[in-house]
Amino acid sequence: MESGRGDENYMNAAIIGIGLIGGSMALALKEKNIAATIYGVDANEAHQQQALKLGLVDEIKTLEEAIALSDLIVIAVPVNIAEKLLAEILPKIKKQVIIDVGSTKNAICLIADKSKNGKRFVATHPMWGTEFSGPQAAVGGAFTDKAVVICNKQNSDDEAVALVENIYKALGMHIVYMDANAHDVHAAYISHISHISSFALANTVLEKEKEEKNIFELASGGFESTVRLAKSNIDMWVPIFMQNKENVLDVLNEHIAQLKKFKSCLEKENVEYLGQLIENANKIKRILK
Amino acid sequence: MESGRGDENYMNAAIIGIGLIGGSMALALKEKNIAATIYGVDANEAHQQQALKLGLVDEIKTLEEAIALSDLIVIAVPVNIAEKLLAEILPKIKKQVIIDVGSTKNAICLIADKSKNGKRFVATHPMWGTEFSGPQAAVGGAFTDKAVVICNKQNSDDEAVALVENIYKALGMHIVYMDANAHDVHAAYISHISHISSFALANTVLEKEKEEKNIFELASGGFESTVRLAKSNIDMWVPIFMQNKENVLDVLNEHIAQLKKFKSCLEKENVEYLGQLIENANKIKRILK
Repeated sequence: MESGRGDENYMNAAIIGIGLIGGSMALALKEKNIAATIYGVDANEAHQQQALKLGLVDEIKTLEEAIALSDLIVIAVPVNIAEKLLAEILPKIKKQVIIDVGSTKNAICLIADKSKNGKRFVATHPMWGTEFSGPQAAVGGAFTDKAVVICNKQNSDDEAVALVENIYKALGMHIVYMDANAHDVHAAYISHISHISSFALANTVLEKEKEEKNIFELASGGFESTVRLAKSNIDMWVPIFMQNKENVLDVLNEHIAQLKKFKSCLEKENVEYLGQLIENANKIKRILK
Repeated sequence: MESGRGDENYMNAAIIGIGLIGGSMALALKEKNIAATIYGVDANEAHQQQALKLGLVDEIKTLEEAIALSDLIVIAVPVNIAEKLLAEILPKIKKQVIIDVGSTKNAICLIADKSKNGKRFVATHPMWGTEFSGPQAAVGGAFTDKAVVICNKQNSDDEAVALVENIYKALGMHIVYMDANAHDVHAAYISHISHISSFALANTVLEKEKEEKNIFELASGGFESTVRLAKSNIDMWVPIFMQNKENVLDVLNEHIAQLKKFKSCLEKENVEYLGQLIENANKIKRILK
């Protein structure tokens, strides 16, 4: 399949939910000549039209039509809807392969495990996103050189996993295999908390704006960097936080505890400990170059 | 002076502290033909050599020499050292103009107010920076299209303020005038809290790494965005937080309170309020495009 058009694996794909991730996936499948025809399914009529106009998908279809016409079905809707959709689609498929691209993996894997044809589902999470949403947010080349997690591969048909591995490799991604529970812990620490932090920072400054109208006047790169995720889509993030509640609470408690250490340093003018906290944080240079 | 070389205002400048900001300022003063010769002063011998090698400054001088040779003196050292240095330099100048570029303004303005020649000092804060430090971190064109705050201009000689205004305009910056106290409140909300948040987020995940070695494996753009400031320099940031302690504590308390709202939503599965918090945070789109 990596060789693209002309290859026997050249396939038709259905993208269910043509937004930031689904739309970018559609573009990537075309760019890499993985998909011949891409069928788009979306509940939002305006998004259907935008997706066609932007050339993200070839045709808009109903869910039933798209399932029947496709070899690969990509579920790219908010994680609470993805769960329901997977339970609805699985009984209807024959030899198609279904993937999801959601930010939580435990709940959807449980659905697959107890569904007919559950082995045709491969749970995946491409580690890419932006704070924007909708078809207009889709960008080409989004997944190149990024990581993608495949969860609980032992619960999927080997041939379905192989197909999905080949697709992600063709997109230029490196694959990380992980248990769904472990994935959700990791996601809480390296993604979900960053979003909560940004939402809360935005609310902190917006609250101050009520008494200090020009509070944003001096905002520059540092502010933008830590707050830009606060633009993220409500319909996507509420279900993620709810599905990953326990892990997000663990990391949120730890994060509040870490913030309180800074608070205590300031209150007690403990310059030495403040320095130690920053020195420790600087170790992140090992990870972020 | 905006017209550069040949203009009667073409000047010599001393940069005290040739790091991220001082070095970038040196480059900008050259790029815009504002300074004829730039004298560098730095306590760190390795930084002296790097600054020369990188072409940031023309010559390395002692503080005394640089003061005597320069028309403009730029203090670009950590804010606690800047305070002391200003008190040391002011009595030694004749008609030179001194500016600082630090992230807190109240403490240094108080020093100027009670010093001989204090009116030759103009308190400024160019709203640009990165998480890197040292001469190698200096970049050209850094200040173009950014804001710069001038504080308590009524306490400086009109002619000194006019000179500094012309320099910043020539660098392509737009000037915001502010009382030093107001500046420090603003800086706490749109810069200092972002740094504390990043430091604490880094420590949160580094703490988790002790039990989960590969916790950073999936980190992508969102993580980097919210945590990159955690690489920021300890010598620069400890004094900023200490000098701006009261304001930083105010915003830190508010930020922790905002985070606790998210915590409470998750604990109580209050999906509706969680949605309201995110919806409110989304209002940041008004500020960040």
